[in-house]
Amino acid sequence: MSRQKKFILPESEIPKTWYNVMADIPEPLPPVIHPGTLQPIGPDDLAPLFPMPLIEQEVTTERFVPIPDEVLDVYAMWRPTPLIRASGLEAHLQTPAHIYYKYEGTSPSGSHKPNTAVPQAYYNKITGVKALTTETGAGQWGSALAMATNHFGLSCEVYMVKISYHQKPYRRSLMQTFGATVTPSPSSLTQAGRQMLERDPDSPGSLGVAISEAVEVAATSGGAKKYALGSVLNHVMLHQTVIGEEVIKQVEMTGEYPDVMIGCVGGGSNFSGFVFPFVRENLVNNRKTRFVAVEPMASPSLTKGRYVYDFGDTMQMTPMMKMYTLGHSFIPAPIHAGGLRYHGMSPIVCHLYDLGLIEAVAVHQTAVFEAAVTFARSEGIIPAPESAHAIRTTIDEALKCKESGEEKVIIFNLSGHGHFDMAAYDAYFSGQLHDYEYPSAAVEKALSQLPQIA
Amino acid sequence: MSRQKKFILPESEIPKTWYNVMADIPEPLPPVIHPGTLQPIGPDDLAPLFPMPLIEQEVTTERFVPIPDEVLDVYAMWRPTPLIRASGLEAHLQTPAHIYYKYEGTSPSGSHKPNTAVPQAYYNKITGVKALTTETGAGQWGSALAMATNHFGLSCEVYMVKISYHQKPYRRSLMQTFGATVTPSPSSLTQAGRQMLERDPDSPGSLGVAISEAVEVAATSGGAKKYALGSVLNHVMLHQTVIGEEVIKQVEMTGEYPDVMIGCVGGGSNFSGFVFPFVRENLVNNRKTRFVAVEPMASPSLTKGRYVYDFGDTMQMTPMMKMYTLGHSFIPAPIHAGGLRYHGMSPIVCHLYDLGLIEAVAVHQTAVFEAAVTFARSEGIIPAPESAHAIRTTIDEALKCKESGEEKVIIFNLSGHGHFDMAAYDAYFSGQLHDYEYPSAAVEKALSQLPQIA
Repeated sequence: MSRQKKFILPESEIPKTWYNVMADIPEPLPPVIHPGTLQPIGPDDLAPLFPMPLIEQEVTTERFVPIPDEVLDVYAMWRPTPLIRASGLEAHLQTPAHIYYKYEGTSPSGSHKPNTAVPQAYYNKITGVKALTTETGAGQWGSALAMATNHFGLSCEVYMVKISYHQKPYRRSLMQTFGATVTPSPSSLTQAGRQMLERDPDSPGSLGVAISEAVEVAATSGGAKKYALGSVLNHVMLHQTVIGEEVIKQVEMTGEYPDVMIGCVGGGSNFSGFVFPFVRENLVNNRKTRFVAVEPMASPSLTKGRYVYDFGDTMQMTPMMKMYTLGHSFIPAPIHAGGLRYHGMSPIVCHLYDLGLIEAVAVHQTAVFEAAVTFARSEGIIPAPESAHAIRTTIDEALKCKESGEEKVIIFNLSGHGHFDMAAYDAYFSGQLHDYEYPSAAVEKALSQLPQIA
Repeated sequence: MSRQKKFILPESEIPKTWYNVMADIPEPLPPVIHPGTLQPIGPDDLAPLFPMPLIEQEVTTERFVPIPDEVLDVYAMWRPTPLIRASGLEAHLQTPAHIYYKYEGTSPSGSHKPNTAVPQAYYNKITGVKALTTETGAGQWGSALAMATNHFGLSCEVYMVKISYHQKPYRRSLMQTFGATVTPSPSSLTQAGRQMLERDPDSPGSLGVAISEAVEVAATSGGAKKYALGSVLNHVMLHQTVIGEEVIKQVEMTGEYPDVMIGCVGGGSNFSGFVFPFVRENLVNNRKTRFVAVEPMASPSLTKGRYVYDFGDTMQMTPMMKMYTLGHSFIPAPIHAGGLRYHGMSPIVCHLYDLGLIEAVAVHQTAVFEAAVTFARSEGIIPAPESAHAIRTTIDEALKCKESGEEKVIIFNLSGHGHFDMAAYDAYFSGQLHDYEYPSAAVEKALSQLPQIA
């Protein structure tokens, strides 16, 4: 046998703490504010939606947060995940670059999402919550929360973007197999849904609307139900750092250190979890790794959005966060990467971007699927279209190395498999996919509707 | 954290040899015979279909066969696979039994099939073959061969049972992503296909017919194309023993030894690969493990078939093998476990069964899906319907332990995931699945048409 292909940690090496990048960033994060008072919100404002342990994690500045044993036990179902040398892709590209990928697709729902679904279900469970509501776009997050709530004996209501509900019936079946109820959004069960249906009875839905519905159901349940969000918030980024903490140990096994780390961004959670421990190494140990966030051209919040206060959802039910946003009323084009179709972005990711600590790039979907097929044929894994955004940029970086002759070490996060996305591959093979130019007029309009907050 | 969940070998522990059970069985296997002469066939009879290294492996009695480095390199994409303690299932069942499963679903195509697809593609490659033909039912085997041929630069023609071709478009997409061409069978491209279509223009196809088509294309290609079979034959069983050889090392890590090992059987390859190394331990080291092969009630070759000479395919194009068979003209009911819908069974498995070295049991499909959902909810993995047959019997054995209070160690082979089988889960949830009684009349009729060979 030739070169080592996989770098696998024993179960005993699952990280015992999450890493909080807030402890090390040079400037504190701008506060989340109440849309009415414009004042920073406090724990009580969030209490109708989240249990107190998660609210505390949302604002903590502790550097390391212990992972409860009950969560570690569930993590052990699939963690540690492998770090894999992309030797097949390297050979195909004939690049001198050393390419590795962290593979999160081995989890029960096939992506990184259970890393936060499990602790969220756990903290709700131990504070007496019996039911969770959530939204899902492509279905990755809904599947993860369905699995986690099932494990801890909570019930789970998922509002699934209507177009995905019909286009991806097997993601819905997966959630049902894990015991969740799934409702297409917009629905007539909520005021937010009914309002949307009045405007447009044939609305295909969007992540922003589905969030409004799930938030409303929790907020009006008199405490019976809480709400869970799969990305954007600080505690979600925190939980995902279990990815990067494993990679820290795995790169030691390889004897190399990354020059570049690449991840796709929608709300920002897989990218954050993957790179934050290495951002720490840059800040604290003077390492020089570049971090590249890859977003779709159809929804380019970091590269084209404005860094202002905006709502997390379409119907303006959430507090306001400072983030690179395309405007909460902007509805991204129907690209086959539902998990990246979001108007905003994790405030921490935005803050790091604003401070120049990370980079961002936007890519077109046909180039993404071309990269996905190249990867599948050379590495044997069918990537999720979302994750394939990271592959596109990895290939571009590796081809630059080929030109320059540089032996750079590139690591990307393969955040999930594409087994439930084969319809998108079919569309690509039959030439039905096309690219969407950056929708500048629609974004300008959505941004002009935002309240002006200093 | 509590009890260890996963038992994972380092990459360096991938077995370097396959194990050949022929070396240790008390009586030799009945010969394969030519249907015309009724004489044992020789290497030359097989040469139009298979490359010589595989023909040699078909008849070797060497105990251990070295795995080529080029094959080990590809195995390293996903091997060694994990052995997992089913702690969630144990807790759910409240059984004193210790349950483990070997998980083969982490391979590129999601099942154990690449274990033999890769060496088959390799041996064809090094003997100058440029193209392979094959059949596939549910699509697991076709996907595996597509991946393997793509890796070694061969082209691949897959004849896919027509009903599956239409019911499982995403398995087809997966094969296409790996670069294979996929034709619904029966097709008008072959004499066998045309003959079948004349009899029944609306034929949904069957594995037996698809084999006839793939064999015909190879046999009439003047040597340009060879044929590859995903189960039944001796060399296929040999390649799959990489599974059981890993389990041998993994049970050592657990400090326990299996009382019972359970696998599903269609053609017999995942079961064989899983248990043969332990059959050796029984024969050579006087161990007392029970081996249980689980088949569907709709296609129960071992439990209800007759041990006679029969053809491997419907159109009588293959040599004749002595096996437990339901008759080559028997078409099993359309259960949602396409990989188990085969009239015959691996001659080695049949021989071991005849010698009393292994057991067999047949189960109904609704009970299988009930077990599949129980497993998914307690362990987080969606099993392939085929593999869920093994789960059904595992749960039955564990419940017996609960009654008797025995702490038996049970290991089953989870041969694949069910990500491409969610339509079957949907059918189960909506109450559309029903059971098929053992089709005794149809089997009697098919068996009565067999030539009588002593």
